[in-house]
Amino acid sequence: MPATPIDHDVEVAEPTRRAERLDAATVARVRESFARQGAMATLDAELEDVGGGRVVIALPIEPRVSQQDGFVHAGVVVAALDSACGYAALTLMPDDAEVLTVELKVNLLAPAGGSRLVAEGEVVRAGRTLTVCRGEGYAVQGSERVHVATLLATMVRRRTG
Amino acid sequence: MPATPIDHDVEVAEPTRRAERLDAATVARVRESFARQGAMATLDAELEDVGGGRVVIALPIEPRVSQQDGFVHAGVVVAALDSACGYAALTLMPDDAEVLTVELKVNLLAPAGGSRLVAEGEVVRAGRTLTVCRGEGYAVQGSERVHVATLLATMVRRRTG
Amino acid sequence: MPATPIDHDVEVAEPTRRAERLDAATVARVRESFARQGAMATLDAELEDVGGGRVVIALPIEPRVSQQDGFVHAGVVVAALDSACGYAALTLMPDDAEVLTVELKVNLLAPAGGSRLVAEGEVVRAGRTLTVCRGEGYAVQGSERVHVATLLATMVRRRTG
Amino acid sequence: MPATPIDHDVEVAEPTRRAERLDAATVARVRESFARQGAMATLDAELEDVGGGRVVIALPIEPRVSQQDGFVHAGVVVAALDSACGYAALTLMPDDAEVLTVELKVNLLAPAGGSRLVAEGEVVRAGRTLTVCRGEGYAVQGSERVHVATLLATMVRRRTG
Repeated sequence: MPATPIDHDVEVAEPTRRAERLDAATVARVRESFARQGAMATLDAELEDVGGGRVVIALPIEPRVSQQDGFVHAGVVVAALDSACGYAALTLMPDDAEVLTVELKVNLLAPAGGSRLVAEGEVVRAGRTLTVCRGEGYAVQGSERVHVATLLATMVRRRTG
Repeated sequence: MPATPIDHDVEVAEPTRRAERLDAATVARVRESFARQGAMATLDAELEDVGGGRVVIALPIEPRVSQQDGFVHAGVVVAALDSACGYAALTLMPDDAEVLTVELKVNLLAPAGGSRLVAEGEVVRAGRTLTVCRGEGYAVQGSERVHVATLLATMVRRRTG
Repeated sequence: MPATPIDHDVEVAEPTRRAERLDAATVARVRESFARQGAMATLDAELEDVGGGRVVIALPIEPRVSQQDGFVHAGVVVAALDSACGYAALTLMPDDAEVLTVELKVNLLAPAGGSRLVAEGEVVRAGRTLTVCRGEGYAVQGSERVHVATLLATMVRRRTG
Repeated sequence: MPATPIDHDVEVAEPTRRAERLDAATVARVRESFARQGAMATLDAELEDVGGGRVVIALPIEPRVSQQDGFVHAGVVVAALDSACGYAALTLMPDDAEVLTVELKVNLLAPAGGSRLVAEGEVVRAGRTLTVCRGEGYAVQGSERVHVATLLATMVRRRTG
């Protein structure tokens, strides 16, 4: 098939530049939506940072989010990365937009042990309908930070209401 | 690159045949490992069925596992499918084996509403080191059953202890 | 994020039923588009079957499509599966539609040796904008048929012209 | 399931540092293997650069590698990225190793038009058995360079002979 959607019309390559153009209303919109995600509350996840095209979510590593060996369950890693990516996409959309996950793929790179899981989501390419995001997961223990997961996701925009 | 691992040496194509060759010790091993997954307890997930190369996990759909619209969060869908696939792989391995997720990819097909999420994991190809699994997620409401997700995952075997 | 696009509104679960509702114009549309894919000609690929929501493409296994060990290169396997899936999606769309690949993921299950590679693409869920497809690749040698790859892909519809 | 293989024991985060430790024998091994990939010859692909944990492959964009609209076929983009990633993995392995692709996932970001397709493959995490790679595809036209694809792949090492 064709090598691709011409739908993608904005490439966002410089994360540092983005944070500046994010207004308070957009941040509020993200925070309000995040607060409605019951799964994030169940995981004790918090929105650590909301920038333009980039969102960071973190949660405590506890037995309640573990797999059989005490490390964070892959599904929990994915949950945090998925929300981070979805909200990263939302920051670049108009006010009446909502984001839904079309699909995602994750590679788990190391066991997620330690005290805190940090999930960073970032927009790779934003289009009118579809947005491609990348997520990186880190397990943090004191000053140490281990790269535990890398994710690619496709988000679709739809109108709210 | 090469079109593939010669590692995969068992293709498991007929799920119905498998259940029969599953002994009590293997079922017990799966149940014991599942019981140690804190994340499954947090999600109120249950092992519904353990067969040879096929495992079913289910959980109640409640606000505590939701995304912002009340449907099951993609990460929760993935968590259930990942555990179902991992244990499906484990049923075909020797006693001293443990399964870890290398990577997974999921397509979300419909919003997961209703009363119960059912995650079916099945082995597509089992090798000495790597096992490929497929997962299908369904949202159940009364007699209705909606296909909400399809997943492909790669599992790696390692020795316990 | 949300567990999904409500965009997907047609699930196509019974391939056998589909072929019947495929009209000659749609078949012609698929064949005409396929004929314009230079890459398919370069690989000596042929459209073996065009049904509603299901398309089969095949190509000869020769040194010119190999990786370093003489098996079919993963990219060639993907090329055939991608076209099969894209055209499977196209058969369920209106006349003015064109299909582009948003993303795809493939697991390689066994080395693709033998005389012929067969790629079957099938629609899992068709929506107004997005269609999810599954592809299965087989290496054929005489009466033997080895399952060499399983693929999931997301296709997007756009208008031609 | 577990959040991961403890197999991954080398994270390679600084590509610039890597090139230096790549000896002539390893470069020769990569070039020799690449020369045996019939598919790369068929696509007129060339090894542009071989560094430690990083390989670049390029090919001319011509009608013979196109999809129906004249852009590079997704399968061809994947073929180049897969080989780039596989050889990137190979550069970090012992002499008797061979690399096979376990699985890969690609997001297509823009139509690949222009005169040349450049595929960069890079190791994200190298383990004894499994190596995770990232690939980025670019379509080049004169001084313009469009990001057309991003890929994640899992490679497995096996012994030659």
